[in-house]
Amino acid sequence: MSDAILARRNRLMGPNVPTFYRDPVHIVRGQGVWLWDAAGNRYLDCYNNVAHVGHCHPRVVEAIARQSMTLNTHTRYLHEGVLDYLEQLTARLGHGISQGIMVCTGSEANDIALRMAQAVTGKTGIIATDNTYHGNTVATAALSTRRPPIGGYPPHVRLVPAPESLAPLGGSAERQADVFAENVAHAIADLEDSGFGFSGIMLCPFFANEGFPDLPADFLAPTARIVRAAGGLMLVDEVQPGFGRLGSHFWGHDRAGLVPDVVTVGKPMANGHPVAAVLARPDVMGAFRSAFGYFNTFGGNPVAAAAALATLQVMEEEGLQANARDTGAYALARLRALRHPAIAQARGAGLFLGLECVTDDGGPATAFATELVERMRQRGILMNRIGRHMNTLKIRPPMPFSRDNADLLVDTLGEVLAAMPTETADAG
Amino acid sequence: MSDAILARRNRLMGPNVPTFYRDPVHIVRGQGVWLWDAAGNRYLDCYNNVAHVGHCHPRVVEAIARQSMTLNTHTRYLHEGVLDYLEQLTARLGHGISQGIMVCTGSEANDIALRMAQAVTGKTGIIATDNTYHGNTVATAALSTRRPPIGGYPPHVRLVPAPESLAPLGGSAERQADVFAENVAHAIADLEDSGFGFSGIMLCPFFANEGFPDLPADFLAPTARIVRAAGGLMLVDEVQPGFGRLGSHFWGHDRAGLVPDVVTVGKPMANGHPVAAVLARPDVMGAFRSAFGYFNTFGGNPVAAAAALATLQVMEEEGLQANARDTGAYALARLRALRHPAIAQARGAGLFLGLECVTDDGGPATAFATELVERMRQRGILMNRIGRHMNTLKIRPPMPFSRDNADLLVDTLGEVLAAMPTETADAG
Repeated sequence: MSDAILARRNRLMGPNVPTFYRDPVHIVRGQGVWLWDAAGNRYLDCYNNVAHVGHCHPRVVEAIARQSMTLNTHTRYLHEGVLDYLEQLTARLGHGISQGIMVCTGSEANDIALRMAQAVTGKTGIIATDNTYHGNTVATAALSTRRPPIGGYPPHVRLVPAPESLAPLGGSAERQADVFAENVAHAIADLEDSGFGFSGIMLCPFFANEGFPDLPADFLAPTARIVRAAGGLMLVDEVQPGFGRLGSHFWGHDRAGLVPDVVTVGKPMANGHPVAAVLARPDVMGAFRSAFGYFNTFGGNPVAAAAALATLQVMEEEGLQANARDTGAYALARLRALRHPAIAQARGAGLFLGLECVTDDGGPATAFATELVERMRQRGILMNRIGRHMNTLKIRPPMPFSRDNADLLVDTLGEVLAAMPTETADAG
Repeated sequence: MSDAILARRNRLMGPNVPTFYRDPVHIVRGQGVWLWDAAGNRYLDCYNNVAHVGHCHPRVVEAIARQSMTLNTHTRYLHEGVLDYLEQLTARLGHGISQGIMVCTGSEANDIALRMAQAVTGKTGIIATDNTYHGNTVATAALSTRRPPIGGYPPHVRLVPAPESLAPLGGSAERQADVFAENVAHAIADLEDSGFGFSGIMLCPFFANEGFPDLPADFLAPTARIVRAAGGLMLVDEVQPGFGRLGSHFWGHDRAGLVPDVVTVGKPMANGHPVAAVLARPDVMGAFRSAFGYFNTFGGNPVAAAAALATLQVMEEEGLQANARDTGAYALARLRALRHPAIAQARGAGLFLGLECVTDDGGPATAFATELVERMRQRGILMNRIGRHMNTLKIRPPMPFSRDNADLLVDTLGEVLAAMPTETADAG
């Protein structure tokens, strides 16, 4: 069955289309934190942050169905849905951020955020880390390091070394925040010298794609001072850490003590419906709206607004941020108690957790982490890997994840680890 | 009520957010070709191509609701929905185009198409017309002429003069196809000289945003020869003309006798659900998938696939392409019979029709067209304007538009025209 589907994928989608796992899962049904494959096997979803309030949450499904049968058209007509949602969403943001543009994907949101920084500063130079992902458009993909674009990387982009847990910048955890900030300062100077000028820096405040390194609470303070002094904008990508996932705070930037100029949100915000947004202060929005014409046909249509509003309401009513905090702390404590020579660190916040795997000589144990993920998939637990060397387990389940779910996850992980070789040489 | 909503929009969305009409319509409900405002007034929708098979079509609504309660997750797991849809969609395409990437918006689709041309040719230069719109990302917005980007237009873009109905390039309808092609040839030579090289041309085969000028069937033949000889790709934007709207053909490029290398589709394909796609030959897809990493979280998820498949099935079962052909021909004949000094030409194809308005001295009657649209809106008929001078009425209703609907449209238009001044000086 899976072979037939893979053959069809190859025929209809072409080569190099990403799938998860050596033996990809053919999922046909989802409910809460659970997924079922075509053979009826059940999987605990420990990865999917899109189904934020749980797969197929009846409240969100009902909101989508009800609004779809009533009206679904663009925002050049007046409709209260998009306004009701933006009111509720911006009410959860501080720092003067009170306006938004609704779009369909996080990529579209970040693509706009880059232009907001240009509109405010009149400059185009942009900084990101050297191990990140902020989207798949031409402009946002230029901030990724996967493959060089045709014609080379655009000359207005500077990528600074990402922070790390086990091999901190500058050689010590204490020095890392300053070294990161110094690299940002050098990139700013270089952009100014090269004529592009400095428009801003785009960061995930949790450094999710960088492997969510364990960092002190004020890690980004020196960077923020330098960015602010140089007149650049702080573009904060909340696609992964936002919407309460980190437990202690609704937003990753508030957990990091960071004052954003622009906030982008995506994946989890409508539980799978294609909804994203870019949020900004009125001065930033005004500059963008004066410099660029922008309209998004599907963005903020009544169904998108209804799906997003229902997701926010379910989060509130089911106390999902508090659950992320409490269950996350419980799960992290249990992960920290796991013992294996290859496990160098358990870390994370709320329901965004991971284990970094190392070889006997302390290097990244990519093959070990890969094998671990595959064995967990065979045991019915879905997770994946992240980080510069893809040697950190990424555990990021739907928000209704329970203590029982955490126990099943960690118990299974313990059993799988016990069966793994203790010598971990790694081909990388 | 509308004033209160406009105030909220200004507060929550910022300035310069586009709305239709001097007195914007507050729409709360839609069904088929009809929309209702909050006061219960009914409007005939003669503009909205997103609600392709009719507002809130029960088959599409049911497909969305059913799949939303079953499973909605990304395509890194295997699922048959995206494959079933791509199979049905590519079966409707010739020219060896048999593979696709599903995304969420036409902008995302065109943003990929630009990279496909880069991947195949190893070059970056791109050509479009000087009065078009292919999307709102940084890369696709560079093909629009609305406002110059910060830092200026990117140097790898060349915009050639768009064809016109009343003021053809080269001064005559006979010369226009060759003059358009000559301008493309000059742009290609210029891109090659400037070092970017020529990767392709992006065109709507109906020149929808250019005001859908009345052109001979083989208008694009000389251009296609030149593009092909230069080794560039023909990137065909079917967001507006595709899916049977032009009546005689399912695709605009087949009506234009054009052989595309890449086809992009969007707005109408899932009746309002955020679905779009880029479709290509396997060699083009393979080049893109080798040169660029690309994954779209929401693109082609089971709900997107179900919504798009239901839309395609409804089109088939209700014979909507044939309806566009027949009702469109009927409506166009009636539009051609309208008489007013300001109406210079009725034109279009299928259910994509318009009237170009001119002043007494033959110039564009923008103010007249604007007033006409406003008066129609007051009479309960929704349409809008397009073209270089925004002096062409744009009539592009949902596909189940009937002869009765066409009669109501043209009868009302006749009455409104009769009450318009016959002297049409225009401030532009």
